[in-house]
Amino acid sequence: MIINNIDKVKPLVHCITNYVTVNDVANILLAANASPIMADSIKEVEQITKISNALYLNIGTANERTFESMLISAKTANKNNIPIILDPVGVGASTFRNECIDKLLKTAQIAVIRGNISEIKSIALNQNSTRGVDAQETDSISLENQEAIIDMAKKLSNETKAIIAISGKIDVICDSEKYALLYNGNQMMANITGAGCMLTSLIAAHVASNTNYFSATLSAISQMNIAGEIAYKLMQPYQGNASYRTLLIDSINKIDTQKIKENIKYEIR
Amino acid sequence: MIINNIDKVKPLVHCITNYVTVNDVANILLAANASPIMADSIKEVEQITKISNALYLNIGTANERTFESMLISAKTANKNNIPIILDPVGVGASTFRNECIDKLLKTAQIAVIRGNISEIKSIALNQNSTRGVDAQETDSISLENQEAIIDMAKKLSNETKAIIAISGKIDVICDSEKYALLYNGNQMMANITGAGCMLTSLIAAHVASNTNYFSATLSAISQMNIAGEIAYKLMQPYQGNASYRTLLIDSINKIDTQKIKENIKYEIR
Amino acid sequence: MIINNIDKVKPLVHCITNYVTVNDVANILLAANASPIMADSIKEVEQITKISNALYLNIGTANERTFESMLISAKTANKNNIPIILDPVGVGASTFRNECIDKLLKTAQIAVIRGNISEIKSIALNQNSTRGVDAQETDSISLENQEAIIDMAKKLSNETKAIIAISGKIDVICDSEKYALLYNGNQMMANITGAGCMLTSLIAAHVASNTNYFSATLSAISQMNIAGEIAYKLMQPYQGNASYRTLLIDSINKIDTQKIKENIKYEIR
Repeated sequence: MIINNIDKVKPLVHCITNYVTVNDVANILLAANASPIMADSIKEVEQITKISNALYLNIGTANERTFESMLISAKTANKNNIPIILDPVGVGASTFRNECIDKLLKTAQIAVIRGNISEIKSIALNQNSTRGVDAQETDSISLENQEAIIDMAKKLSNETKAIIAISGKIDVICDSEKYALLYNGNQMMANITGAGCMLTSLIAAHVASNTNYFSATLSAISQMNIAGEIAYKLMQPYQGNASYRTLLIDSINKIDTQKIKENIKYEIR
Repeated sequence: MIINNIDKVKPLVHCITNYVTVNDVANILLAANASPIMADSIKEVEQITKISNALYLNIGTANERTFESMLISAKTANKNNIPIILDPVGVGASTFRNECIDKLLKTAQIAVIRGNISEIKSIALNQNSTRGVDAQETDSISLENQEAIIDMAKKLSNETKAIIAISGKIDVICDSEKYALLYNGNQMMANITGAGCMLTSLIAAHVASNTNYFSATLSAISQMNIAGEIAYKLMQPYQGNASYRTLLIDSINKIDTQKIKENIKYEIR
Repeated sequence: MIINNIDKVKPLVHCITNYVTVNDVANILLAANASPIMADSIKEVEQITKISNALYLNIGTANERTFESMLISAKTANKNNIPIILDPVGVGASTFRNECIDKLLKTAQIAVIRGNISEIKSIALNQNSTRGVDAQETDSISLENQEAIIDMAKKLSNETKAIIAISGKIDVICDSEKYALLYNGNQMMANITGAGCMLTSLIAAHVASNTNYFSATLSAISQMNIAGEIAYKLMQPYQGNASYRTLLIDSINKIDTQKIKENIKYEIR
């Protein structure tokens, strides 16, 4: 299931994303041998999407202007068979974010939606339970609620026809039929800004290079998780989250498929 | 006076800030165990401020749109007893920046204003003496002018009912009655972009977690200064300002209150 | 030809640039002892440009609003004899980007235009050949096409009265009479976002400090290229593009003119 075609395709990923973590997103795409292009002006997004291999949408700091551009790019992507990968940052924290996601899902067919459990719950259950952009502690995936969460994600996948990916200590990927549980990763990833944004952009690069979107999503999350493990092992005692961010992107730049296959722990059901 | 309640409160800090240093602000808040949320759309700022523990406003790259959002968030914060921490980046460099600060001070009660001496002078004396966003060399605090500067800051605190914090080689914190002089820090902090923005966001995290705002401001500046000293000691001869930025955020992530208490040099009068 | 007056002038560089790499631009300007100020609101750009020593324009994520500000700043700069340095990021990728560059060139006298070969070709030949923001593989400078590229750049310089700088494995600088070929640099520079943006901002700092713009451009590109070589030598086997970015800015912070003179490989014809 683990395939990396990014080196062959060298996909151009059109990113309309937040200004907080945009630099990390660009650098992690380059680290993975993909090519980022950021453009959010309504005067050019249609043209930029058309020349791209994937469209990455992230509502982290969306506003009225940039959201209009997202809608235009989303329609353009669908018309041109370009996959859309969506990061619903902080959905549930405001009516605006909820409406953005609602409109995007009604306007376009999304290929993959990746969020933390609070964000995915907010979309699936139409709840405003999110506090900020981080997952709620009450929202973690455990043995007790695992089945309920997978059912919810499957239902959301069925409704949206998108692959649903939920990040957490255990990651879940599902379509309407099957699901994968992923057991790699490192706790430090929650201590930097943009780990989620970067991961979703990696999914975009893989989806742009692999016609099997489920496998592409699995490959991207595994690449990120195992890079996160390597980065943690490289840390010196005096280093904190800022160094970890650098080491994480470095590790994406150095990791190969062999290394991922050796270290991956997952199951598909 | 040195207290760190951030670990207990895990405050959510709503940041409306410039796009130059926003990533560093997010990472330093995470380094200090606070939780950042960036949102500047007029469609959501009221809701986002309401769920937050502090509102951090920074006019570094403010424009007509984002400044409107700042005003709405500021009013919302006051209505909901959420402290506002203000960084008047580059005030004095343009009429627009002066008007922004003027309107903010007329619209809302600010808890803490932190700037360099040129910025605070510009607000206090209504002067346009700033050149860019860095403090002027003619504006440093010395033994000769120390008293005059403290008088000016006290007067500004009296007028605004805000704690005034002035960053420099010696830092000054004052309210209308007392003041503190802080002697820690490192010269390298002036060689990276965003040291001031990051510091003000740390103040926001501390103010959100501590009802004594004077003590919270003192704790935040000391934490930053001593982290700045530790970061400097960790530098290798080939490292410059980019590594220093990383080491500074790392050191905030690793430092504890004990370390601050051991190294702090300050006096309160 | 290699001169660095930045330490003497300590130029203030007004940057209207993209939000992807703006933090790196600010830190590399500080690393080089220049002083950055970012401001893009139409309410203040005229005033900010007036107090600056150079105006740096970069269309990486330009939109209708920020482009209007660029035009106002460009006019202001010309009126006040402040040099304008232009980075036409991704020109050729959209009609909007083409129109931005076209309008800027018609509105103001630019001192230096720096781009990759695809971008410069797009301006010179009025072609839409660019795919994204990176140079096309078919667009590299070789012994075979070197002469044709220099002719094209000279013609563009003649039309625009600007110095033209083309980045690549070999860098080209030309005015209407002479040209320089620069042989330093490192391949890793193409693996980080913002290497081009940072380089153009360094050119701005040098042009602000040196009345000979050709020499200033040569000094800036050499400083960047040799810092890029030093940074590469400092890399550990586990480090990738994120560490390289940090080491590159560090190396700009540590390098001196002596080191550049010792390592520079170039010819002027």
